Amino acid sequence: MIDIQPVLAGDRLALSRLLTAVENDTPDGRRALSELFAHTGRGHLIGVTGAPGTGKSSLVNRLARHYRGLPEGEQPSVAIVAVDPSSPFTGGAVLGDRIRMVELSGDPGVFVRSMASRGSLGGLARTTAGLVQVFDAAGYEIIMVETVGAGQAEVDIARLADTTVVVEAPGLGDDIQAIKAGILEIADVLVVNKADRPGVESTERALRNMLGLAHPVRRVFRHHGTRITAPDEPAVEQQGPIWVPPICRTVSTEGTGVPELVQAIADHRKYLETSGDKLRRDRARLETELRQGVRATLESRWREGIVNGFFDQVLEDVVARRRSPQEGVALLVQGETG
Amino acid sequence: MIDIQPVLAGDRLALSRLLTAVENDTPDGRRALSELFAHTGRGHLIGVTGAPGTGKSSLVNRLARHYRGLPEGEQPSVAIVAVDPSSPFTGGAVLGDRIRMVELSGDPGVFVRSMASRGSLGGLARTTAGLVQVFDAAGYEIIMVETVGAGQAEVDIARLADTTVVVEAPGLGDDIQAIKAGILEIADVLVVNKADRPGVESTERALRNMLGLAHPVRRVFRHHGTRITAPDEPAVEQQGPIWVPPICRTVSTEGTGVPELVQAIADHRKYLETSGDKLRRDRARLETELRQGVRATLESRWREGIVNGFFDQVLEDVVARRRSPQEGVALLVQGETG
Repeated sequence: MIDIQPVLAGDRLALSRLLTAVENDTPDGRRALSELFAHTGRGHLIGVTGAPGTGKSSLVNRLARHYRGLPEGEQPSVAIVAVDPSSPFTGGAVLGDRIRMVELSGDPGVFVRSMASRGSLGGLARTTAGLVQVFDAAGYEIIMVETVGAGQAEVDIARLADTTVVVEAPGLGDDIQAIKAGILEIADVLVVNKADRPGVESTERALRNMLGLAHPVRRVFRHHGTRITAPDEPAVEQQGPIWVPPICRTVSTEGTGVPELVQAIADHRKYLETSGDKLRRDRARLETELRQGVRATLESRWREGIVNGFFDQVLEDVVARRRSPQEGVALLVQGETG
Repeated sequence: MIDIQPVLAGDRLALSRLLTAVENDTPDGRRALSELFAHTGRGHLIGVTGAPGTGKSSLVNRLARHYRGLPEGEQPSVAIVAVDPSSPFTGGAVLGDRIRMVELSGDPGVFVRSMASRGSLGGLARTTAGLVQVFDAAGYEIIMVETVGAGQAEVDIARLADTTVVVEAPGLGDDIQAIKAGILEIADVLVVNKADRPGVESTERALRNMLGLAHPVRRVFRHHGTRITAPDEPAVEQQGPIWVPPICRTVSTEGTGVPELVQAIADHRKYLETSGDKLRRDRARLETELRQGVRATLESRWREGIVNGFFDQVLEDVVARRRSPQEGVALLVQGETG
């Protein structure tokens, strides 16, 4: 039985233990999550995602340091969840996280948690959601989730975020176009990091062109001749029901452009609150969580109900091509109810 | 009702229609898959995966052209499934595939199929498995599945393959290390593409170092002083129960190194057959398929059993923080059985 009171009161050791329980999906962890839930919904969740080589980790680090360097009284507490897909087998934290932990350590207003991507991706997104809820309930005001890689994984995890920051960098090669299209559709703020490198203009131009494709509503407006804020103009100029993702240039190794990025994130947060999008995103997130929970419960109940050895017997038939997988599934599910 | 006989007889139009039915997961498609299953297990399935910017598409294209350019009588028929995660929303095929289709079109021994990554990743892997089974049953001897991106997605899809080819390229940035660790563990053959670019030696060196970490069995052997084949030596020197992933250098734009890569893939295929790994992989694949099928069946049955509007009602309670998601799930699953 995990007591959630110390976690709510800011006890770091209790927090750390609870995070482990949630990550391992223990019954105690699930019970504590359920109890904590009433305290959630206050933090601002920022997803930071993008292709390999864009310098995300160092940017997240800079963001955390910026938030913590604000004048006394305006410093939000910061939690970082680094989702590390480096190894589904060994589950080790990557070097970058260790460096970051050292840099940010000693600040009681920062908590960094690395997570290996274990099991299925659905499981990964669910576990991440759990960790975020713990940080939210524990009173962390800024919660950043950083994901490495690109594709459906990023999309799933980015759905968790209030503000999704997509990081690009100049000159990442020819496949990058394919990645961007999907990732751009979930972007609230775009960053061209390593902006001191050659090719930054063409990267930004490509992003701007693709934004038109990814956000069709903007095309419609353009078509009707109504001028709206271009993505490279300051986000503060944006108003009304449409959010146009701004493009920020940063050099994370030097901190260049980080204050402007923080401002863009703050603008998006304000937009979420005034437009009603915040509630819509919260609802969508919780709907996903319910559906995933139902799926997991059904499966574990099925596993308990099935006769020992029956699964292996069906599998042998399928391996020998005596039965198709479809026939096997029908048998296995029948076995549970009969 | 889909007649599978024309597909088995090599009718391309019937094949194309069946692939669409399987991709859309229609009842007819599922039935046809089940009927076709007895004809599967003959093709060699090659997964080609790696980070963005490595030139995978062009390499897959070169491989296909190489296979089709072999002397008469030794030309395998080739199917290509390009899994395109570019957009979970629009589902468009990327430019590269269109170019490829044009280049390979007119050859009746080649079939290219692009797939958008729709829905959940679990769904994507399942659909890909279905398409591969169709090609396998239809008599395609080489079936290549190309995936863009990196992370759990690649791992899941690569589990489908008999031979997993992981493509790298020099100078893809600093995050690349984190990606490689996970991806390397599933690699059977490694490729350093764009090998005419600077940095190829250091990329190869990094790969070789990481191979030691990713394949602990090799470390053990090294520890005991037993010399085993280094990954850069020709794969034909490898024997016994251990497969050490060879590293091939290629320049896919010019075709350099492609014959050596084809040889490495052929060596791995021979290894699979002699070591018993082929059967083990087939079994693991089918086990995953059974489990996923059970999961999907349980969920759709639950969806049918639930009272209309009950899900939305529970969701509202959760959004209002009157109930935790855990409590909501318990109610929803109870609702089904009670």
